[in-house]
Amino acid sequence: MKAALQAYIDGFNASNAQAIIALFADDASIEDPVGSQPIEGKEAITEFYQRAVEVVESLTLAAPIRGSHTNAAAMAFDIEMVINNKRMVTRAIDVMEFDADGKIISMRAYWGPGDAQVLS
Amino acid sequence: MKAALQAYIDGFNASNAQAIIALFADDASIEDPVGSQPIEGKEAITEFYQRAVEVVESLTLAAPIRGSHTNAAAMAFDIEMVINNKRMVTRAIDVMEFDADGKIISMRAYWGPGDAQVLS
Repeated sequence: MKAALQAYIDGFNASNAQAIIALFADDASIEDPVGSQPIEGKEAITEFYQRAVEVVESLTLAAPIRGSHTNAAAMAFDIEMVINNKRMVTRAIDVMEFDADGKIISMRAYWGPGDAQVLS
Repeated sequence: MKAALQAYIDGFNASNAQAIIALFADDASIEDPVGSQPIEGKEAITEFYQRAVEVVESLTLAAPIRGSHTNAAAMAFDIEMVINNKRMVTRAIDVMEFDADGKIISMRAYWGPGDAQVLS
């Protein structure tokens, strides 16, 4: 699970949407941020990450990735983005759950309005 | 919510179980670590934290506390403990959900066997 989360980080840093999407199960769901309408299924997830890699400059782990005693892992990281020529950072914690094949079935991203900041 | 999470950290660092317990709703549940049997209700939670403050030396945030767009917040932190004269560190991410009164109704602690380390 930690290798999958590291591959998620690396995929963003390589702007490789396909590498990220390949980590997800076909029936996965994404709630990003937690409190928003979940995105469901591989097609919607593909669209989500194809857009995401276009605006994301880098993902940087803020602390080592955490596991669990079941099919979940979590990580704290900082996302640097450029949107409308503005450089922004969002500080998030993602919690991912995995199916029996080691694919991500659920991603929930914890960040609020107070965790996003315009840098320039 | 971030103030409550900071108070949770501060409560441990002051070895003040009562300050931690006061953050929880009467019908709260704790799953620590995620994948273990949840602890439910104020009495069981009181017992849990009274024991916890005895072994915990310090809690240190590993990154700023994250909010969300709903009733949840999350934080990555390191727990230093002394158990049987051995100093240990556990790296965890806690996800907390809050009720309408601002009390914690759910705490889930993400850490696995690979996130605990004997220091000495």
